[in-house]
Amino acid sequence: MENQKQLTVALLAAFAFGFATVLFVLRWVLHYREGLAWDGGQANFNWHPVLQLSGFIFLNGIAILSYRLPWTQQLSRESVKYIHAGLNLLALTCAVISFRAVFRSQGASNFPDLFSLHSWLGLTAVALFSLQMVLSACIFLLPITPDSLKEAFMPLHTFLGRFLFGSAISVSLIGITERLIFGLKEPNYMDSPPEAIFANVMGMLLVAYGVAVLWISIHRSWKRPGDPVWRTSGLEDKIK
Amino acid sequence: MENQKQLTVALLAAFAFGFATVLFVLRWVLHYREGLAWDGGQANFNWHPVLQLSGFIFLNGIAILSYRLPWTQQLSRESVKYIHAGLNLLALTCAVISFRAVFRSQGASNFPDLFSLHSWLGLTAVALFSLQMVLSACIFLLPITPDSLKEAFMPLHTFLGRFLFGSAISVSLIGITERLIFGLKEPNYMDSPPEAIFANVMGMLLVAYGVAVLWISIHRSWKRPGDPVWRTSGLEDKIK
Repeated sequence: MENQKQLTVALLAAFAFGFATVLFVLRWVLHYREGLAWDGGQANFNWHPVLQLSGFIFLNGIAILSYRLPWTQQLSRESVKYIHAGLNLLALTCAVISFRAVFRSQGASNFPDLFSLHSWLGLTAVALFSLQMVLSACIFLLPITPDSLKEAFMPLHTFLGRFLFGSAISVSLIGITERLIFGLKEPNYMDSPPEAIFANVMGMLLVAYGVAVLWISIHRSWKRPGDPVWRTSGLEDKIK
Repeated sequence: MENQKQLTVALLAAFAFGFATVLFVLRWVLHYREGLAWDGGQANFNWHPVLQLSGFIFLNGIAILSYRLPWTQQLSRESVKYIHAGLNLLALTCAVISFRAVFRSQGASNFPDLFSLHSWLGLTAVALFSLQMVLSACIFLLPITPDSLKEAFMPLHTFLGRFLFGSAISVSLIGITERLIFGLKEPNYMDSPPEAIFANVMGMLLVAYGVAVLWISIHRSWKRPGDPVWRTSGLEDKIK
């Protein structure tokens, strides 16, 4: 029971950091930037950070945690699998729409596409995320897949899942920095106007959300009672 | 034996990506930028990326892998512990000198310090890295520490170690981006001159080094034979 209390505190911390990040990104674009619109302008671009932070990263984090949430413990493992997959599909949809928002607004303003490390890493991460989703759906959701294949793939699935979640946060931090450098003029980013401090704090909150999600996800004693522990070696044992 | 061959291939890949990153950062500052010097100017600043990539991150990665290297398998676990600690101390030294290089060159050019998300995250990461080193030295190197404390701390040590390694890479990617935006003028970063492509490729190589190190480090069957497996739950078992 002590263990379950610790998990609850950790989950509350993760949600608090996650919600704070979502509120910060909304206030950033609505108060400091040009707001939200689908008109090919700057307000169209703003859907990119909003959908990445409050869509892709926030939902992907909740998907990772879906096996650890107290209310999912009443559900069968099979049901939670579909919740996990559904949240990730929603997250990917947000990422794809957020890409559309960038290309649309950059196309209209003649700002070049895909020159930056941010764009190279971001596209690679989302491509790998899509690949992971297709492979995982075939392996874990199709009833005909043999257990030996599931067992062999699981360590790669969990490693890649955590790695891509961390990568998405990392790529967002580059993106926030780029936006502050390109977007702030007199005062510039380096003059530390209120918007710069605000967005820096948002970046720190995003990292805190990432730490909390990853820490909960690797914690073996917080797994669902009776769930298999898939070892990286491919061996399987059961939690007592 | 098949398992050992796979480990060798993975280690060679990690070293190849790591060395390539080191070569790229040297060529970046020596060929594209102002070279290296300790004169308070731009060439002084250039020690920052060089010491971060080829010092802090490269050495920290090797420190993480030190328990997995074939030639350390002849050594006692105690000896490898000191190699691990020594490499991390060297890595931290590089990070501290690299900070000195930035403050020295920014002080001379009146470029403000610590305004950016890059600096906030970088300082936090190195502060946590120092804390991790002090705690770990007290807990794992002092002979009087009880085994129960070692066991309780190990999951946090390995989580924080991997997390800070990933964070250092993430912070470097922001730094590379900042340097390209601030440093490239006509052609700008967004015009994709050769230096921009070169530095973007360097960023991708750095990420590949990170993936390889993290993948090897979580692989349970690549641990030293007979080494304890410290579970996140605090339980301990032995690899067969």
